[in-house]
Amino acid sequence: MQQAAYFRILKTTKYMLNNIRVVLSHTTHPGNIGAAARAMKTMGLQHLYLINPRLFPDAQATAMAAGADDILANAVVCSSIDEALQGVVYTVGMTARLRDISIEVKTPRDAMPQVLQEAATHSVALLFGTEMSGLTNEETGRSQLLVNIPSNPEFSSLNLAASVQVMAYELSVARQAFKPQMPSMQPAKYEQIEGYFAHLEKTLFEIGFFTTQNPARMMQRLRRLYARARLEADEVNILRGILSVTTEYNARLKARYLEEQEHVQKH
Amino acid sequence: MQQAAYFRILKTTKYMLNNIRVVLSHTTHPGNIGAAARAMKTMGLQHLYLINPRLFPDAQATAMAAGADDILANAVVCSSIDEALQGVVYTVGMTARLRDISIEVKTPRDAMPQVLQEAATHSVALLFGTEMSGLTNEETGRSQLLVNIPSNPEFSSLNLAASVQVMAYELSVARQAFKPQMPSMQPAKYEQIEGYFAHLEKTLFEIGFFTTQNPARMMQRLRRLYARARLEADEVNILRGILSVTTEYNARLKARYLEEQEHVQKH
Repeated sequence: MQQAAYFRILKTTKYMLNNIRVVLSHTTHPGNIGAAARAMKTMGLQHLYLINPRLFPDAQATAMAAGADDILANAVVCSSIDEALQGVVYTVGMTARLRDISIEVKTPRDAMPQVLQEAATHSVALLFGTEMSGLTNEETGRSQLLVNIPSNPEFSSLNLAASVQVMAYELSVARQAFKPQMPSMQPAKYEQIEGYFAHLEKTLFEIGFFTTQNPARMMQRLRRLYARARLEADEVNILRGILSVTTEYNARLKARYLEEQEHVQKH
Repeated sequence: MQQAAYFRILKTTKYMLNNIRVVLSHTTHPGNIGAAARAMKTMGLQHLYLINPRLFPDAQATAMAAGADDILANAVVCSSIDEALQGVVYTVGMTARLRDISIEVKTPRDAMPQVLQEAATHSVALLFGTEMSGLTNEETGRSQLLVNIPSNPEFSSLNLAASVQVMAYELSVARQAFKPQMPSMQPAKYEQIEGYFAHLEKTLFEIGFFTTQNPARMMQRLRRLYARARLEADEVNILRGILSVTTEYNARLKARYLEEQEHVQKH
């Protein structure tokens, strides 16, 4: 079965780029969407997802696409990041800043072998934030890896489409030298991971963990921890099983407590 | 002296990008000039040369520069390629096509070590053609190296500013790993090379070589040959010396012939 998976990879190496989607979040200028589509197509990428674009479709997007109309026509417009990352197992968030966070930050060149390895068998997203401020903390938290395009410290503001071009170019170059590895894990999909985090957060509230902790900050830290771990589908099931048991145990404790209280009050 | 030159390189490695100019020939859309300036600045390039831009300065160029105004303000507008390449010893022409010509074509990544090596001590130009049709044959003939950004065979039309971004990015990445070599030659400057070609063409006309050859085509072939050879300044002097002697010899032959004719007619 491992062997079969390996041959499947070899066969699909050629079509790897098909497993990669470019996700543009809250893009302000439609011209950038068109220019990004053009940049993608020149390098063989084709799947464009747009989270709440300010203007789309738009004549300026079409003009800047300069022939990459099929990518615009097939672009998936989403109302949330959850919708855009449905089915994805590996999300690469683009960042202009080298934040002081524990999630891994790589250069495009260093990132590509891993991105291609994931894309050989699974769905991968390259996630780009808005023109003005990049990714939100929430979006960063949805990424398994952050990529920073090294730039002039005194002028680091790459245009959105220029960033897409650099990433697509690096992907295309890396693909030519890429040797797929035997896949060692079955990574969980985006929605499985998010299902776990929702479950975890709910449970931590229930057990009273957040009475002493800032929930948003703590969830960010937990997200980073699990981003490093790259959860497998089976592991998500195990972790959710633990949460369920915790809740049940907690419910039993509470029930017993209430019972005792009643008992106390009765007597 | 070789040793001294080597230390000079080490010292100037840091400022290598200052020796590199981006030359945009006959750019149609001013927005592309602005976007190119932005792309340059994000990667630490600063010298922009514009050969007969259709519109410049222009509000759209400024808008797309998004803060790289200094590069636009210092851009050198030229009326000819000769003016734009003045003082340059190594010109890299960008091409979208892999033409059937004998001048070397490299990928950006393979080209960069050589580009940086030249830029360590001399002036280097990255030459970009018009949006619609790229470099002319004349411009290609002025290049010592052609670079092609590998792209989707079915859609290879990179935007001009996107090409500048890819090249500037590759330069910037390559620079970090660059180890300068001891320079082995003193390459001739653009104007010395062109002076030689003008001299050569004139001489070939004079000696009657072009009565059996297409002059333009033959000059292209000779340009390619010498582009591969990378002429040194001294060598240009030697070659021009040969041309001078050839002309003189030819003149002497002609004079003697005319003398003999006169002699024949007299008798």
